[in-house]
Amino acid sequence: MTTATINRISKSPVTGKEYEIPSVLDDKAGIDAFIALHPGKKVVVVQGLGFVGSVMGLVVANALTEEYAVIGIDLPTPASYWKIRSINEGVFPIIASDPKIDLYYQQALTKKNYYATYDSHAYSKADVVVVDINLDVQKKSAKNNDLEGYDVDLTPFKKAIEAIGSNCKEEVLVLVETTVPPGTAQKIVRPLLEECLTKRGLTTDKLKVGHSYERVMPGPKYIDSIQNFYRVFAGTDEKSAEAVERFLRTVIRTDEYPLTRLGNTNATEMAKVLENSFRAMNIAFMVEWSRFAEEAGVDIYEVVNAIRMRPTHKNIMLPGLGVGGYCLTKDPLLASWARMNLFGSEEKLGQSEKGVHINDKMPLYAFEYLQSQYTGSLAGKKVLLLGVSYLNDVGDTRYTPVEGFYDQLINAGCEITLHDPHVKYWEEKDIWINQNLEELLEDECDVVVVTTGHKDYRSNESLINTLLSKPAAFMYDTIGVWTKDEIKALGEKHMVKVLGRGDL
Amino acid sequence: MTTATINRISKSPVTGKEYEIPSVLDDKAGIDAFIALHPGKKVVVVQGLGFVGSVMGLVVANALTEEYAVIGIDLPTPASYWKIRSINEGVFPIIASDPKIDLYYQQALTKKNYYATYDSHAYSKADVVVVDINLDVQKKSAKNNDLEGYDVDLTPFKKAIEAIGSNCKEEVLVLVETTVPPGTAQKIVRPLLEECLTKRGLTTDKLKVGHSYERVMPGPKYIDSIQNFYRVFAGTDEKSAEAVERFLRTVIRTDEYPLTRLGNTNATEMAKVLENSFRAMNIAFMVEWSRFAEEAGVDIYEVVNAIRMRPTHKNIMLPGLGVGGYCLTKDPLLASWARMNLFGSEEKLGQSEKGVHINDKMPLYAFEYLQSQYTGSLAGKKVLLLGVSYLNDVGDTRYTPVEGFYDQLINAGCEITLHDPHVKYWEEKDIWINQNLEELLEDECDVVVVTTGHKDYRSNESLINTLLSKPAAFMYDTIGVWTKDEIKALGEKHMVKVLGRGDL
Repeated sequence: MTTATINRISKSPVTGKEYEIPSVLDDKAGIDAFIALHPGKKVVVVQGLGFVGSVMGLVVANALTEEYAVIGIDLPTPASYWKIRSINEGVFPIIASDPKIDLYYQQALTKKNYYATYDSHAYSKADVVVVDINLDVQKKSAKNNDLEGYDVDLTPFKKAIEAIGSNCKEEVLVLVETTVPPGTAQKIVRPLLEECLTKRGLTTDKLKVGHSYERVMPGPKYIDSIQNFYRVFAGTDEKSAEAVERFLRTVIRTDEYPLTRLGNTNATEMAKVLENSFRAMNIAFMVEWSRFAEEAGVDIYEVVNAIRMRPTHKNIMLPGLGVGGYCLTKDPLLASWARMNLFGSEEKLGQSEKGVHINDKMPLYAFEYLQSQYTGSLAGKKVLLLGVSYLNDVGDTRYTPVEGFYDQLINAGCEITLHDPHVKYWEEKDIWINQNLEELLEDECDVVVVTTGHKDYRSNESLINTLLSKPAAFMYDTIGVWTKDEIKALGEKHMVKVLGRGDL
Repeated sequence: MTTATINRISKSPVTGKEYEIPSVLDDKAGIDAFIALHPGKKVVVVQGLGFVGSVMGLVVANALTEEYAVIGIDLPTPASYWKIRSINEGVFPIIASDPKIDLYYQQALTKKNYYATYDSHAYSKADVVVVDINLDVQKKSAKNNDLEGYDVDLTPFKKAIEAIGSNCKEEVLVLVETTVPPGTAQKIVRPLLEECLTKRGLTTDKLKVGHSYERVMPGPKYIDSIQNFYRVFAGTDEKSAEAVERFLRTVIRTDEYPLTRLGNTNATEMAKVLENSFRAMNIAFMVEWSRFAEEAGVDIYEVVNAIRMRPTHKNIMLPGLGVGGYCLTKDPLLASWARMNLFGSEEKLGQSEKGVHINDKMPLYAFEYLQSQYTGSLAGKKVLLLGVSYLNDVGDTRYTPVEGFYDQLINAGCEITLHDPHVKYWEEKDIWINQNLEELLEDECDVVVVTTGHKDYRSNESLINTLLSKPAAFMYDTIGVWTKDEIKALGEKHMVKVLGRGDL
């Protein structure tokens, strides 16, 4: 096999099945056949079949007050092509603990109203295009995880918008849901679509462009986080805003979760990145206090719990191993970039950027703390990491801080075993994970580290007992899942350390 | 009158009455007579008769499950002596909108169980001493409000603790409620008291020292913010913690607001400054976003209201004119100072300090924004400021950001008129304030600035109508009290600007 051939293969991490990407990229017949099944129905094309788009497609296919024909579209690349095939073959491309995912997917299969493709021909059929692709930040980080700089390359995003503009009808609603730099809908998406339409000899006055952001939380309430949750929206003009509102009312339970319309799309785009920057900064703020707590013999968990008694302080956060996921790790940078590059400000959002700097370095600190507490060298030591996901009780490894911690351990020469009840395959590292914790605990190990706050590791008597039955080792909780009693019990046999718990 | 004589006068801002500070400072007879009125009752001495101490004294005098004899003690200085006399003469030294203040004070007058003095002889009678004095940070600020450095001088605080130690019984509970640098109870208060007792030939093993912080909010729920609110406490040893708990149970409604005991006093001291730093930092974080909103034509108020729909984001704050009050303006610095000076860390709490820097400069920005928007020079212009207090619906001018803004206007040569429905006398500036807004509005003025978010300025139709009846002027809302409709109405006649509302 040549490299060229290898790159034509797209493998599903859900089933392990391999698909060959076709050399002739034409799915017009498939699209037209799908459309023919749904005469008179409005066609909604969801651009992007990732964590948001694939599930947004499900929600639209199960809309509350209208029957849509839904086409999900993604690129015919090794990373994405399998999702297209998988949806059409009856296997949903995301493993989630939310039973509604399966329910909605089965309903869509029955109604045959959710088709997937790679062919831009789909846009020519669309009444609504929902943009759910990624818009990434390119971080330049030093070896010690220190953020040295970053860039926002809009080229792939613009290409995706051009694919719409080169194919869409004159009268289409393009609803951007992607987290974008504030200013994008008004200054980039709308002008680009108008340019494409004009080039095709079409008018631009029927074009509608809006922005509304979802607040998707992968996990047990995946569907609800789209369908049963508050939405903020705006249009690039009055009729766009009205069209967005009409569409959202058909798919979101707006009677219980009223829509909020803002003055312009800059405002909705800003709201999304501000939300996430707020959370990222709250964590970054607590990093220093956690270090101070360690120095002062104070248990930061106990302090924060006491503070949370105040209704005005309920949202104070705890630092842990680090910050992960697709949003909090980049959104402050997106916003800062937009301020300077789309609005010509000479000032960045310095504090928000600083938050990303601090958070990025947390896994390194967690490693250095381990190194400073562990007597002897870590080289050759067997380390078991409990948790790979960045989020409790969810299998989401995107930008997980466990990666930075893992890399440091590898550099130090450790032999690492991984466990995560929600992650079968760690895509970013191309590692398959043994999900049987009991089996893993049968092997000897020198260091056990809690790296994710999954329920499985909390108040789990059997886990504590198993750990107590093992030879003396180093137990390290980076998240604060162990109670004081558990720490005391473990401490009678093992060395126990908890990040931010200075009073052990 | 010589300067020396002037300094012997202490004037009540409540009644305007002047008191001469006695040249012979001896109130033993007064204290002993008071004690004789209350045989068998435990004596609680509250050190400090400021915003916290004077009201804490009231709460203890009206304890829930025990009858105490309460002595409030403060210094015989021009700033404080009048409070002592006022309490003993039947006029409570704080004007507050909370009707419970008057009720509790009348009850204490009836029971004759709240006496005030300046004489340290009081400590010799105390079973419990509650420390409610100030512990200040000395900020060094440049003319543009930029914080250039700061210092924490513990001398006055230590002197107050020595006054207790030089007079108290062997078996006393000293309960520190002052916001102190973390580490203070353990590293400063306890050793100092032990030293004093030892010097006096007394034992130190019966001494009890604890820390518990109040969360006083001057305003309509002043008493409740002490008596009906969650408390966090700790002792410097087990029996101190128990003694603190016993005492608090007699004065706080702990059945509804359970006490939280933390592992050590470092933790409770840290919790308090962390709470306040969290809030200060949340405001500082929003400053940059507010500027970004102005640049991007976005209304930050509308964005923040949309974000607050999320339960996890309810506490996101708005910046406004600036940060005031006794706590948020200094507590992050107290904490950072303690980290370096009491725990020997080489690192400060850099992010928290940065928050103070940013917040300190907010009034300057508000002024610069006015200057940039006002056509022509501000020199000689008549400016009406609506609000002097730093907090809505409360008359509290301590470190109010209005001061920095006021100073800038004065420097620019403006003629300023002040209004505040809750502030009769602006102590820090020694200015008496006309509280009749209608009267003030009869005069001509060039600029009207909302500087505090009092209810009186919100949705006040008559105020808007009066403003509309005046000649065209510059209306400037630094807090965001005016609704979009009000702004539109005002805008038809006046120039209107709102901080953080870019889309006017």
